[in-house]
Amino acid sequence: MLDDTIVAIATPLGEGSIGVIRISGPEAIAVGRRVFQPKVNRDWYIKDNYKLVYGHVVDPDSREIIDEVLLSVMRGPRSFTAEDVVEISCHGGIVPLRRVLEVVLRQGARLAEPGEFSKRAFLNGRLDLAQAESIIDIIRAKTDAGAKIAMAQLGGKLSEQVNELQQELLGLLARIEAIIDFPEDDIPAENLEEMADRCSGLLKVIEQLLDHADTGKIYREGLRTVIVGKPNVGKSSLLNALLREQRAIVTDIPGTTRDVIEEVINIKGVPLKIIDTAGMRETRDLVEKLGVERSRQLLHQADLVLLVLDASTGFTEDDLKVVSLIKDKKVLVIINKIDIADHAIDYEQLKQLIGYSDILEISAQKKIGLERLEQSILNLVLEGKVTAADNILVSNSRHKHALERAKHHLTEARRGLAEAVPADLVSIDLKSAWEILGEITGNHVTEDLIDRIFADFCIGK
Amino acid sequence: MLDDTIVAIATPLGEGSIGVIRISGPEAIAVGRRVFQPKVNRDWYIKDNYKLVYGHVVDPDSREIIDEVLLSVMRGPRSFTAEDVVEISCHGGIVPLRRVLEVVLRQGARLAEPGEFSKRAFLNGRLDLAQAESIIDIIRAKTDAGAKIAMAQLGGKLSEQVNELQQELLGLLARIEAIIDFPEDDIPAENLEEMADRCSGLLKVIEQLLDHADTGKIYREGLRTVIVGKPNVGKSSLLNALLREQRAIVTDIPGTTRDVIEEVINIKGVPLKIIDTAGMRETRDLVEKLGVERSRQLLHQADLVLLVLDASTGFTEDDLKVVSLIKDKKVLVIINKIDIADHAIDYEQLKQLIGYSDILEISAQKKIGLERLEQSILNLVLEGKVTAADNILVSNSRHKHALERAKHHLTEARRGLAEAVPADLVSIDLKSAWEILGEITGNHVTEDLIDRIFADFCIGK
Repeated sequence: MLDDTIVAIATPLGEGSIGVIRISGPEAIAVGRRVFQPKVNRDWYIKDNYKLVYGHVVDPDSREIIDEVLLSVMRGPRSFTAEDVVEISCHGGIVPLRRVLEVVLRQGARLAEPGEFSKRAFLNGRLDLAQAESIIDIIRAKTDAGAKIAMAQLGGKLSEQVNELQQELLGLLARIEAIIDFPEDDIPAENLEEMADRCSGLLKVIEQLLDHADTGKIYREGLRTVIVGKPNVGKSSLLNALLREQRAIVTDIPGTTRDVIEEVINIKGVPLKIIDTAGMRETRDLVEKLGVERSRQLLHQADLVLLVLDASTGFTEDDLKVVSLIKDKKVLVIINKIDIADHAIDYEQLKQLIGYSDILEISAQKKIGLERLEQSILNLVLEGKVTAADNILVSNSRHKHALERAKHHLTEARRGLAEAVPADLVSIDLKSAWEILGEITGNHVTEDLIDRIFADFCIGK
Repeated sequence: MLDDTIVAIATPLGEGSIGVIRISGPEAIAVGRRVFQPKVNRDWYIKDNYKLVYGHVVDPDSREIIDEVLLSVMRGPRSFTAEDVVEISCHGGIVPLRRVLEVVLRQGARLAEPGEFSKRAFLNGRLDLAQAESIIDIIRAKTDAGAKIAMAQLGGKLSEQVNELQQELLGLLARIEAIIDFPEDDIPAENLEEMADRCSGLLKVIEQLLDHADTGKIYREGLRTVIVGKPNVGKSSLLNALLREQRAIVTDIPGTTRDVIEEVINIKGVPLKIIDTAGMRETRDLVEKLGVERSRQLLHQADLVLLVLDASTGFTEDDLKVVSLIKDKKVLVIINKIDIADHAIDYEQLKQLIGYSDILEISAQKKIGLERLEQSILNLVLEGKVTAADNILVSNSRHKHALERAKHHLTEARRGLAEAVPADLVSIDLKSAWEILGEITGNHVTEDLIDRIFADFCIGK
């Protein structure tokens, strides 16, 4: 359905100065002509390109002035979708934008589906699939680090790497095909060995990418975190202290209210998604209130558990109950209330009891030790590995999964070469690896997969 | 402070395809140069005007690519603020916009205060005050009718009318001044009479504007409405039925979730703000739950009361209790549950009992009579007066208040002319009327008032 013209509100809905309506498709300029009345430049639609034209959106049926706007034409292929695009910059409220949208719809454009603009950009070859996917990651980035990783992906860093791998694979494939086509020729053992070595080289690159993929995923999606502890141990104080740290930064930017950011705590670029924050605030104790079964479920989803103990009470039976629930998780032990503590906790005994070695002392009330806590969380996430700097970071589970499957086939191919199995068997694995890598950039991809990927986008993108 | 350069996020915050950063002031283009790296058009800052330039926002300190953007320059005075304006169209998420904003701030722009862009547009003479005020009305419009009224105001219809009034007043003033300057001349009685007649003419125009001002205010701010009735009478069913009607329209537009519109029910263009909707849903009975005192307060704020009675129970003691609370309000009586009624209500008796004549039969469950209910609400609001069509509708309380004061002085002046009081006394009233009308368009206005008006705007506007 690339032959029709689509339209959507491209800015977030709400109260704002500017709102943008985006139209794309063969009729975009014609639709624009029907709804737009320029103030002076009456021939804007003939040749103006990448130019802002001032005027009004006027309902062609009622002649009513709908809004005062700036309109711009971006002719394909030099546009976001590589089709003719018209953008109308309107007043930014819900009602004026809806009114302009309705007029445009009545003139023959169709409401765009989620992600349909990006999908067209991909189908028209302006972006590859990994680049198109990065757009939604940029928009939904929770921290600077997440935005950086997504920007690098949009810039094509991951795609370049994948394309290189595919090129190499094509070279190998050509040589294998030659062997299959001329089976009478003798193949020197060195040749097979060299080809196996080249497989190893490719595998090393893939393994490096996979190595950082979990980190990338955390930067993209956030680290699901649960704060646990017996009643009155200071769980919500800790949460508030961590939130307050970042609010000081965020509330400088007007409009970024708590509501928007509250679910995510930014720990030096790592987004911490506190699970069941609301519950934590209202109820004093997660476990007590929710019951053990529900708590187990919550904990099961968690990537990280912050176990809070009370320096003033020491390690009690209640703590042991909590600990029993988090045996298999990645845990950071936090001793709270050190400002009023009488050193009731024996650390050596504690380590023996609960088996964790990462123990931090803080006072959520007095804001002691928070900086060190954040650093510890960061270390735990990165495990001494890569940061979100300039490295290519695979952050998308789909990409990770593809790399894993490509790795499997490449390992098989290498084994086949080493063991001199029939060349056509090796060829199948190499071809599979090539195809699977193509799923990342979209040069080998099914329509079904494309639909699934873009359906996750927001409207107007 | 018109000599510095301001910046703000101009689009609503949230998840969207596009977000716009707006910079305005003498340094806008210089700041743009420092943060923007065009893809091809390296000399964009020299002469490009109203042109979209593709490129990247790059942090000049770290050389890091922050976002892929379209930048445009609108040189003053042909811009929204009449200053040099640079708009950067970025990816629309909170994090990417914040990052671009931070880079721009580091390059010397200052964060704009709420309404500061519009304020500059006014101070630089691009818009008069009534026009500038209409912008926020457009953005915040709750219904089409509200948006139309605001668009007319932005178009200058109200301003033209006020300017005409002021012109007429100046003419009168000149003649009065002549009388003051040459007191020895005899003034024919016909002259005074004719001037009094002209005052009457002006008063008629002002009275017409005032006549519609309450309607205008309702379109702009909504009609505060309370639904009352004894327990189980079907208040929340009624609310839901009214909400559902419009949701069918609104949910066509993706992204306009319930949350955004829920507070306001659109009754043929009239925004009904249901007071304490949340409370109504949770508690079955407003009065019972809140206590009589709090209910009295809520009712006191209401412009309209929808009194719901139960056709199946007839008029009971409980109803009488409710009625006793709403004696002085504008009330619409709604008989609900007519689908299961056994005609238990004697209407003649009811009219005698509660003294209202507007009685409507509905079934909220079965959606009977809702259309007629909406029409009745509309009639009650408009009272057979103007609709929000092409008339000039004063919708702003500030404007209404100014018109009332101008009317007072003009009435005084007319009386003075009729009674042939000393000309300088008449002159004072005419001057006051002229000045007060100037408060509407801003040609006679204090700095303090300007600050107050624009402080109510949103950031980025």
